[in-house]
Formats: sequence, C-alpha cells, structure tokens
Amino acid sequence: MTGPRYTDLVAALPASVPFVGPETQERARGRPFRARLGANENIFGPSPKAIAAMQQAAVESWKYGDAENFELRQALAAHHGIAPETIMVGEGIDGLLGYLVRLVVEPGDAVVTSEGAYPTFNYHVAGYGGVLHKVPFRDDAEDPDALIAKAAETQAKLIYISNPDNPMGTWHDAARIQAMIEAVPEGSLLILDEAYIEFAPEGTAPALDTGDPRVIRMRTFSKAYGLAGARVGYAIAAAPLITAFNKVRNHFGMARTSQIGALAALQDQDWHDEILSRTAAARDRLTQIAAENGLTALPSATNFVAMDCGRDGDFARAVLAELIERDIFVRMPFVAPQDRCIRVSAGPDDQLDAFAAALPEALKAARRKLG
Amino acid sequence: MTGPRYTDLVAALPASVPFVGPETQERARGRPFRARLGANENIFGPSPKAIAAMQQAAVESWKYGDAENFELRQALAAHHGIAPETIMVGEGIDGLLGYLVRLVVEPGDAVVTSEGAYPTFNYHVAGYGGVLHKVPFRDDAEDPDALIAKAAETQAKLIYISNPDNPMGTWHDAARIQAMIEAVPEGSLLILDEAYIEFAPEGTAPALDTGDPRVIRMRTFSKAYGLAGARVGYAIAAAPLITAFNKVRNHFGMARTSQIGALAALQDQDWHDEILSRTAAARDRLTQIAAENGLTALPSATNFVAMDCGRDGDFARAVLAELIERDIFVRMPFVAPQDRCIRVSAGPDDQLDAFAAALPEALKAARRKLG
Repeated sequence: MTGPRYTDLVAALPASVPFVGPETQERARGRPFRARLGANENIFGPSPKAIAAMQQAAVESWKYGDAENFELRQALAAHHGIAPETIMVGEGIDGLLGYLVRLVVEPGDAVVTSEGAYPTFNYHVAGYGGVLHKVPFRDDAEDPDALIAKAAETQAKLIYISNPDNPMGTWHDAARIQAMIEAVPEGSLLILDEAYIEFAPEGTAPALDTGDPRVIRMRTFSKAYGLAGARVGYAIAAAPLITAFNKVRNHFGMARTSQIGALAALQDQDWHDEILSRTAAARDRLTQIAAENGLTALPSATNFVAMDCGRDGDFARAVLAELIERDIFVRMPFVAPQDRCIRVSAGPDDQLDAFAAALPEALKAARRKLG
Repeated sequence: MTGPRYTDLVAALPASVPFVGPETQERARGRPFRARLGANENIFGPSPKAIAAMQQAAVESWKYGDAENFELRQALAAHHGIAPETIMVGEGIDGLLGYLVRLVVEPGDAVVTSEGAYPTFNYHVAGYGGVLHKVPFRDDAEDPDALIAKAAETQAKLIYISNPDNPMGTWHDAARIQAMIEAVPEGSLLILDEAYIEFAPEGTAPALDTGDPRVIRMRTFSKAYGLAGARVGYAIAAAPLITAFNKVRNHFGMARTSQIGALAALQDQDWHDEILSRTAAARDRLTQIAAENGLTALPSATNFVAMDCGRDGDFARAVLAELIERDIFVRMPFVAPQDRCIRVSAGPDDQLDAFAAALPEALKAARRKLG
C-alpha cells in the first residue's frame, strides 16, 4: 500500500510557501500584531460602495460566479479604453502568473527576473520546471537593460519586471518601459507587473497597446482598490494570449462576491482618488518617521516605503525582528544590498503611530545586539 | 514580432470550458432565466449566520486571507474527527482537482473515469497531458469494478468516482466503496468525489481513514452548505499527499470572506439539517412532477433529480431546449444512454412551480418536433 506516484518534477519540488502570512506569525507568537504594515495591503480599505455591494451579494453566495467575468471585463474595457477580449480576470495576479507560466514554461525553459524580485513568480516558474536566470538590481531599481540582455542570452520565454517595483518602491518612466518592450527578444514575452501602478506618478505606465504580442500587463484590485482578500487580478494582453488562458484556467474559480465587489470598486473612482491622496500622505509621514530616526526613506511610487537602515542585511533583519517583537508586522527585501532596508506599508495614523513608537526602540535594541 | 512560445502541450489544447454557465446563456438569449435549476446549486441558500459573517468580513476585504486556512481546517478536523494535517482547503473541488492532477499526471499517464462523469476532471487531465480511459456506467451508476479493472489494465495513476454520482444522482453504499478502496491497484490513487455526500442516506460514506494512502476524498461547501459562489472545497487524505499540495497551490488563492463564510456555515449544523430536509422535500416534489408528466425520476442521493424522458438523447435534448426556451435553466447528462434524462436541481417552491408549469409544454413541443 503506497501513496500516489508524483511526477518527477513534483517529487523534486520543496513544499514551500513564497510568503509567511501575518496570521501564521501571530499564531506562532501567540499574540496578534498591533500594526499590519507588512503585506502592502491597503489598510484604508475598499470603497464603502464595494463593501455594500459585497454585503448584498453575500445573500446570493449560493450561485456560482460568472465563469466569463463578463460584467467586470466590460467595465474594465470601458475604463481602460480597450477591448474585453484583451482582458483576463483571475484569482489575483498570483493566480494569473501561475496560469501564464503554465502556458509557456516547460522543464528546462529559461525565464529571466531580478534577484530579489517577486518570489511568487519564482515559485510558479520552479513549479513548472523553468530555469530562473536573475540579474541584480541597479541603484535599488530593476534594470531593464540587464533583463533584456539576459533574456537574449538565454533565449528566455518569459521576462518579469514590476513597475513600480516591489519591494523597493522605485520606478521607471513610461518611455523607459516602452523602450524595454521594443527591445523584447523574438520569442520572449515580457510580464509587466503593474500591481502598484495606480500609486505611481502620471507618465509611469506606457500606453496600453493590446496589438503588441510582446507584453502582458498585470493589474490588481488588491492594492489601490483595497480588495486583497477578494483575489481579483487581471491581465491585459493581445487577444490570442488572453484566449489561451481559457485552455488551462479554473473557469469557475472566482468568488462571486469578489466579482461584484471589484466591479463596484472600479465604479467608485472618487474613493480610488481619495485612497491615492491618503496613501501619498501616509508615505510622506513614513518618510518623516524614517528621517526622525536617522534612516533614509527611498522615494516610492507605491503604497509602501523602503527605509534604508544604513547598515547591512543583518542589521536590518535585527530591526525587523525587534519590530515584530513589538507587535509591528513589517517585511523586508530578501537580497543584498536591498536587504539593508525594511519595507513599511502606508496606512492610517493609528497604525503609523504604533510603528513610530516602536521604531526607535527597535533600532536601539538592534544596535545593542549587533554593536 | 510574434507572440509567446506556448508549451507543446498547451499548443495542442483547445480553448474550452467544461460548462457553459447560466449567465452566459442568459446573455446569448437576451433575457434571464425564471428558474435556475441546472447547476445543482443550493437555491435554499447558505446559513443566515454564514451570510452575516461574510457581510461583516466584507469590511476587512483589504486583508489577504490566511494562506493556511488555519481556522477552517481546525474546525473541519474537529467536525470530522481527523487531524488538520489531513485536510487541504482549496478553491472549490475544481481547484483541488486541478492541483491534484498536476501533482501526479505527466503527459501520457493513464487516468480512469466513467464515460459521462464530471467533465471538469477530464478538462484538468487533458490539460496536463494525461490519457483518459473511460468505462461505461452500469444501470445508471458508476461501476466500481469496471473502474478498478480498467485502472489495473492501464496502470492508471488516478481513478475518479463520484459517490453519490453526478449527473445521475445514484449511489453505492459504504461497503461497496470501501471494497473499491481495498481493490485500488498498487500505484493508483482513487479520487472519491463526495460533493453531494451530505444529501445521501446514512451509510453511503465509508469511514474516514486518513492513514490510507490509496484514496483522497473531495468535499465542498458548494452544495449542502449553499456556498457555491464562495469557492471553498476541501480534500481529505493521508498527510503526505495533503502536504504535497503545498508544492503547487496558490497559497494566497482563497478569498477571505469565503474562508469566514465557510467556517460560519460549518458551525451552523441546524441550518445544514434544515437544508437536508428541504432538499428531500423538493426531491419528492420533483419526483411527483416527473410522474405527473409520465416521466420516471431516478432515485437520488443528491440535491438534484435525473428524469428519464423515456426516449433517446435527441428527445431529451429537445425537451431541454424547450425548457430553456421557456426560461427554465436545467442541464442533462452528456452521454448515452444516460442522455435520455434531464437533470433538475432541488429548490424552493416558486422555482419548482415554474418548472412544473413549463415541463408539460416542453414535452408537448418536443414530441411535436420529433414525432
């Protein structure tokens, strides 16, 4: 009596999780966090109209959601001025990245990303047997030229870049990204992860060109729209690529209340604008808190701020541990030299107050520990 | 400028959907259905306590869900008297079937199911390059002996059976299913899809034995718990197989309100019992409606009734088309001789009234058309 025969690929994979969630940490610690500033959630919350729509929709949770995400795709198409056939809605960008990797990556295929970029993408690539080639950040930003050069060198099937970047919050302007798209090697596809694009200055996103088969854009309701828990992301690409998702996706995978909540959130652009201004104010305050503690906040085009703790990764990790010890949930970049920073999400004043109170103590404790 | 290079497997796949949803049909028809009796949804709805919990949770939709589904798994473990390590929660049984197929099926691997059984499982098997071997139903029920024999013959990695069966509503008793588990060939894994098990008579489900590596059980909140739109299913299996899901799953794929709604639904067993009695009454009424129209309703251990229209598949398809024409959403088995039936979900009186009114006309019109 033995268990199932796994695929060779699966047998060789570790059982891993790209991120440890705050609830997991709370259970391990035996007490809750006072401030939840580590996952770049939008703590200001979704539109009250989206909440109301979801509350109303809960009554009809006995219905499966619409497998085509028709109404949401129509609304997104109108919002962006593109055709619905160029939009695929999925279970967050995470889910869409998984489908996309499955569409193109076979064992041994080359994929290019940056050292320290989004680990969930790497998880999916490894999960389908792809071979990751990584280039370093340059000046705390992802490096379009190095990514393109590495893709050409390795004949990569996929190239990943986030703009604005997570975890550093840095960004390139639209012209730089458009030039990168123009330089995508024949046979490669550029994944332009724009999860944070709504927070970025005008002129950060290149114009949407759904006739261009070289790029797929990833957008989400998890950040500016405040619906991380709803799991609604969408991809924008040429219609043939969007259609290909229908070969592999979980057609009835979207929660119905999430579809309805996302639609209502999209329709409340006043709230969206309000979120942008609250987020900008919180970013300014985080920058000030950093300065008051002798740290340097990096300029950010996102809803979080990377704070340079001024020393090496060991020191920043110690600061992070001391913040966690003081019930402040934050995260930090994984890779040197970016790991000299901690990363703190924007949020309401009470959350930032808790962080501001804990940071000086955490720095002092880390210095005491490491000398 | 070309598009992405798809995998050979993906390039050969059709862009298909296992089911056409009722919303898609409504858009094509240009008008809504009056009765939604085709998807075996639980039209009586989820527990009012689950609705209230989801409504409260909507406010905190800015938080990602717990990647471990910890509380729900703890509650399910207590409910079933098994260890949490033997439970994997996922995006509906559909999502879990996709992960499971990915874990074990490589291109060319044999998989066994019944001709006319759950098409979404077949979709996943094809999507990972598996080779489906199908055995016929016997007496309108899935045939454990034939499935096991075919698995032994083909050295199948997976064997699929639903008990109770969809689309016929028939079932085997626990002893028969347990004997099937005992007969699973070395190196095969039995998928026992128990989506409808709560509706079945006592003695239909074999005892849960999470020490047995030969079987994985699939359960769901979509049917008896009335939360199809929430996308919450769970698998019960030996701990090593459950752990393997962590190698491939979308860890943050669950909607947070869905996790909370499912937990509240599980905790309201009074409502669960109420649903079972309402469903049984609706099943009786459907049986009576069938009889009044000269049709034979098959005994059912589910929340739907297959009605034998007494002729061939062409006739049943004509009856179905006439019902749809009269704004009654129902479905039917895909394969002969089961396709002599239409399949009607249990539901409240107003829905069954609409069906009862439309059926005589639909039968008359179908007879007029086909002679």
